[in-house]
Amino acid sequence: MKNVATVILAAGKGTRLKSGLHKVLHPVAGRAMIHHLIDATAELAPEKTVVIVGEYREQVQDALGDRVAYAVQEPQLGTGHAVQQAQEELRDFQGDVLILYGDVPFVKAATMRAMLERLHQADAPAVVVLGFRPPDTLRYGRVIADRFGRIEKMVEHKDANEAERACTLCNSGVMAVKGSELFELLSRVGNQNSQGEYYLTDIVNLATADGRNSAVVECEDHREVTGVNSRAELAGAEREWQEFKRAEVMDGGATLKAPDTVFFSWDTEIGEDVTIEPNVVFGPGVKVASNTRIRAFSHLEGATVGEGCEVGPYARLRPGAVLEAKSKVGNFVEIKNATLGEGAKANHLTYLGDATVGAAANIGAGTITCNYDGYFKHKTEIGDRAFIGSNSALIAPVRIGADAIVAAGSAVSRDVADGEMRMVRAEQLVKPGWADRFHDAMKKKKAEKK
Amino acid sequence: MKNVATVILAAGKGTRLKSGLHKVLHPVAGRAMIHHLIDATAELAPEKTVVIVGEYREQVQDALGDRVAYAVQEPQLGTGHAVQQAQEELRDFQGDVLILYGDVPFVKAATMRAMLERLHQADAPAVVVLGFRPPDTLRYGRVIADRFGRIEKMVEHKDANEAERACTLCNSGVMAVKGSELFELLSRVGNQNSQGEYYLTDIVNLATADGRNSAVVECEDHREVTGVNSRAELAGAEREWQEFKRAEVMDGGATLKAPDTVFFSWDTEIGEDVTIEPNVVFGPGVKVASNTRIRAFSHLEGATVGEGCEVGPYARLRPGAVLEAKSKVGNFVEIKNATLGEGAKANHLTYLGDATVGAAANIGAGTITCNYDGYFKHKTEIGDRAFIGSNSALIAPVRIGADAIVAAGSAVSRDVADGEMRMVRAEQLVKPGWADRFHDAMKKKKAEKK
Amino acid sequence: MKNVATVILAAGKGTRLKSGLHKVLHPVAGRAMIHHLIDATAELAPEKTVVIVGEYREQVQDALGDRVAYAVQEPQLGTGHAVQQAQEELRDFQGDVLILYGDVPFVKAATMRAMLERLHQADAPAVVVLGFRPPDTLRYGRVIADRFGRIEKMVEHKDANEAERACTLCNSGVMAVKGSELFELLSRVGNQNSQGEYYLTDIVNLATADGRNSAVVECEDHREVTGVNSRAELAGAEREWQEFKRAEVMDGGATLKAPDTVFFSWDTEIGEDVTIEPNVVFGPGVKVASNTRIRAFSHLEGATVGEGCEVGPYARLRPGAVLEAKSKVGNFVEIKNATLGEGAKANHLTYLGDATVGAAANIGAGTITCNYDGYFKHKTEIGDRAFIGSNSALIAPVRIGADAIVAAGSAVSRDVADGEMRMVRAEQLVKPGWADRFHDAMKKKKAEKK
Repeated sequence: MKNVATVILAAGKGTRLKSGLHKVLHPVAGRAMIHHLIDATAELAPEKTVVIVGEYREQVQDALGDRVAYAVQEPQLGTGHAVQQAQEELRDFQGDVLILYGDVPFVKAATMRAMLERLHQADAPAVVVLGFRPPDTLRYGRVIADRFGRIEKMVEHKDANEAERACTLCNSGVMAVKGSELFELLSRVGNQNSQGEYYLTDIVNLATADGRNSAVVECEDHREVTGVNSRAELAGAEREWQEFKRAEVMDGGATLKAPDTVFFSWDTEIGEDVTIEPNVVFGPGVKVASNTRIRAFSHLEGATVGEGCEVGPYARLRPGAVLEAKSKVGNFVEIKNATLGEGAKANHLTYLGDATVGAAANIGAGTITCNYDGYFKHKTEIGDRAFIGSNSALIAPVRIGADAIVAAGSAVSRDVADGEMRMVRAEQLVKPGWADRFHDAMKKKKAEKK
Repeated sequence: MKNVATVILAAGKGTRLKSGLHKVLHPVAGRAMIHHLIDATAELAPEKTVVIVGEYREQVQDALGDRVAYAVQEPQLGTGHAVQQAQEELRDFQGDVLILYGDVPFVKAATMRAMLERLHQADAPAVVVLGFRPPDTLRYGRVIADRFGRIEKMVEHKDANEAERACTLCNSGVMAVKGSELFELLSRVGNQNSQGEYYLTDIVNLATADGRNSAVVECEDHREVTGVNSRAELAGAEREWQEFKRAEVMDGGATLKAPDTVFFSWDTEIGEDVTIEPNVVFGPGVKVASNTRIRAFSHLEGATVGEGCEVGPYARLRPGAVLEAKSKVGNFVEIKNATLGEGAKANHLTYLGDATVGAAANIGAGTITCNYDGYFKHKTEIGDRAFIGSNSALIAPVRIGADAIVAAGSAVSRDVADGEMRMVRAEQLVKPGWADRFHDAMKKKKAEKK
Repeated sequence: MKNVATVILAAGKGTRLKSGLHKVLHPVAGRAMIHHLIDATAELAPEKTVVIVGEYREQVQDALGDRVAYAVQEPQLGTGHAVQQAQEELRDFQGDVLILYGDVPFVKAATMRAMLERLHQADAPAVVVLGFRPPDTLRYGRVIADRFGRIEKMVEHKDANEAERACTLCNSGVMAVKGSELFELLSRVGNQNSQGEYYLTDIVNLATADGRNSAVVECEDHREVTGVNSRAELAGAEREWQEFKRAEVMDGGATLKAPDTVFFSWDTEIGEDVTIEPNVVFGPGVKVASNTRIRAFSHLEGATVGEGCEVGPYARLRPGAVLEAKSKVGNFVEIKNATLGEGAKANHLTYLGDATVGAAANIGAGTITCNYDGYFKHKTEIGDRAFIGSNSALIAPVRIGADAIVAAGSAVSRDVADGEMRMVRAEQLVKPGWADRFHDAMKKKKAEKK
């Protein structure tokens, strides 16, 4: 958006979280809160983003790099004081400023856009405030406005009279202000209050005192301005995000048998007519094509699943797992950095790492690719239609040819040619009656021990 | 029930589900919605069932076969029009007709029976409507009735006046009508409305205009008439079904530590004093006898579990799994088409497929029955009190005798006699100092790569 | 607390639970309900605890042993009659008596203390009643009291007038009474009521009739007096306990991504900055140090997890599992009575039982410690930095030296020295073209069978 800058407050580390990690870096749906917010602002293509940092600031800077500018707030004397720190970075900036909070991660781009548009309407508000209607208004300041959204007064809950308390429109703290006016207003904010802090909200009342309009834009869903100050609120934000995503996935034509037990990541993509059973967890980077069934207790991260596959129950797909169409991964099977060809199957108790498996190959129960020698990782290649007998160990680097067979229980360290059979098995040592004698001896020993 | 026919509407495929599967075939608790409904009608033993089909009709016909009759509705011009299609099939039928919906799957037989009985009471209603009281009435037409359930008026929400809107009794669309009157009434239903559709509900107002009574029967629990038009509503129906079932299972004397995390199928049977830990999924066909404990993260399908067993955590029982009394299946163990004898144990990381395991046998960790050669499945038989050492592969067809011992790490391809010991193990190759030299070489190589 | 005795009612076995186990022994959070209650009373250090037993009394006595005294109530003629049975045991006791219920397990010590203190205030109440305000008051008797908590009247819901029903303070049945007065009051309680029972509550009205004060103490959270009479209520009590515990763990600085899916035991200890993913179950006896991550679908019992570890997904830690700092247990891995040294890893499909693993050792996928010979358990020792190749079986008792290497697929039954390499592997039998011929033969056979 032309002539837009954002200021994102992220100075407080979030003491109540009792964490060595800065609050805004705690993840929701597998992505740091502040990234959720910056992703939304990206749709506005702001000219400049200034992140106000303080405690643990090196963590925030490591996470965001130089795609944003930083201003340090130290000490931390309130939200108004925080925004003031952006003045240097925004010195030559002539556009509109959107003020956001790193711990209020779900504000939508459409809402931001509505606020900026409101700033340029005929009544020319000095400040546009984002209002919301929470189920419980007790903790929030009220926005007293007329039916055109023109603000008459901003009032804290504790200072509000009965009529004001009856008003359910609350102040989220998110604001849009013309850059040309912001710092002049801020320069007049005082700290004559019980906390001795400079409050950003005061700019609205200052503008009103100047005879200027301010306006409120209301967000449709109060969950858009959910804030996070504790681990319980972090869990609440996660829950809200998951609720939105589950509804979106079901609208897109997927069946979630028990939506409350399915956890997505911020970038999960699910196709039509996908069925997801209870208790499935999606880490980042997963795409699932249509007509695939993800069975209960599966865990997918960084995996690409083709059409018509069956995954799980108890399948673990790790980064780099690629399941081509109609392939099958069964219970207690782990796939890491490996491709399963069309129609291939690995149904039970298997580890496939750093491997390619050809189309229609059958990987027996208990197969392990030995991909690591303690120092380096090595590749296993398995050809089309190959049959790996159960309980085999494939010692990489190794290649099993097309149509080849590995006998059950074999530890294969040399390549197997196309159409060849490989068996690695010692002689069967037969000891008739031995077990009977062993049982007798052990029973006796056990009796003696008592 | 004598002289009863049912008409089940199932013409619309359910566009909002975005599915290649007809809406009424989507499963709830592992059973297609329309089957839930037909199961309930079966208790009335109707003379005839006519299913109105349209889009995707071959799917519905494949699922229901010839136990019901079909009538095609094409194009689809409303519910009244749909029922009219049954006229040919019900030409010679003299009894009562019950009109149901394939996407309203939970109507109880007792409710159906109450409606049919109401049809024959002294005040001789022409139509009996099933009413319900939803938590939110906004979307539903109202049934305005006196205290004897005699209907004064049926009115859509949008056409209702304030007094009518205050009435919370809503029209489910489920109806009972005398067959002799149904089609005459339907023939007079018009389509002079905004949708240009023929509405079944109009027969009530037509009867009233004729000076005839109609009556409403109210269902006890509004969830009985839950309808499904989207994946989210499908998930909602699943949730309601599970809530009913969990309550029933607990009433029957089972402990569900966290009921919300346990998912049953339509035919699950659970005995007294069974304990079910959190996160357990029951697919179809499971019976669990009393005093058994199903531990967390277990997944059971088509399995029969005896008394006093311990299953899981992380046990997967697949179809044909039979656990006799006091047997034990532990973590990461899969049992398919296999019987575990009384007191037998398979505690860790095992696959038992197409097998019989004798009483008190002990299956070591990592045991795999190699039941598949890529073409055929073969059986494994394990005798009473046999001991299968860990990490063994039993290559079927194979028989391990009673009291026999298989040494750890053996791949056994020939039968082991009763009381015999079988070991399949190569010589231990000892290379003193080799590992130290390997470490040195690899560390050097790793350093060079950097 | 000086001069305090507790009387705990536990005579009824809980018929509605349909259980062979006495109601008060059913566990919540892995601990019998009556133990939760006795743990809370222990903070008062009562001089004497009298448990009133009846049906299944041997079960209660087995569970509690001789740390408490018992009095038998038979037949069971009401709560007043139950408390009377304690008279013999409390004959010489001069202090205060607290009356509790074995199926009301969550009363807090602070609440008990507040009741006892109230008993000694200036207005000298004869009886102190514990009141609570439930969301739904329909089922409970009301406590009509003035603003000082002085009771005017106790009245059952069915006998209450409209004003009394509007009172939301209800009677929990928990009481404190001076020992010197309790049995005299009880001796005057009659059974002239529809049930023919002696009600404990009547002592309040008897005291009032004598012109004596009684008082009510109100508990902060109504969940403190949750009672359990059915499996559904047992599940409800479990849910409440888990909600309290999850909040406590989050307050302590742990992230629970989906709190509703994490289940703790009564004694679980979780450090700061621990992250717990969805679907994790903690059995009794688990301690997790700070900065550790417990991934989805993990199950921990009797385990001690050090700092900076990674556990799961799908890790099962059983009693005696000790994970030293920075060690890693991956998917489908079971650890029982085994220590994993600092930085050691067991990432896939492994069973470690009765073992010690040295620092920085690497346990390959599919490794099994064969710790059981059918009669005795044996130990496996693995040295620092040892590398156990995948799919190996370590046949205990056995020792693998420091820096030693076990080749993949080996079944090792003899000790491996420090720095030594051990390989147990048969010759690779190569059969060129065999697989092609096998496929041809089998395809033919399969075709013939059709």
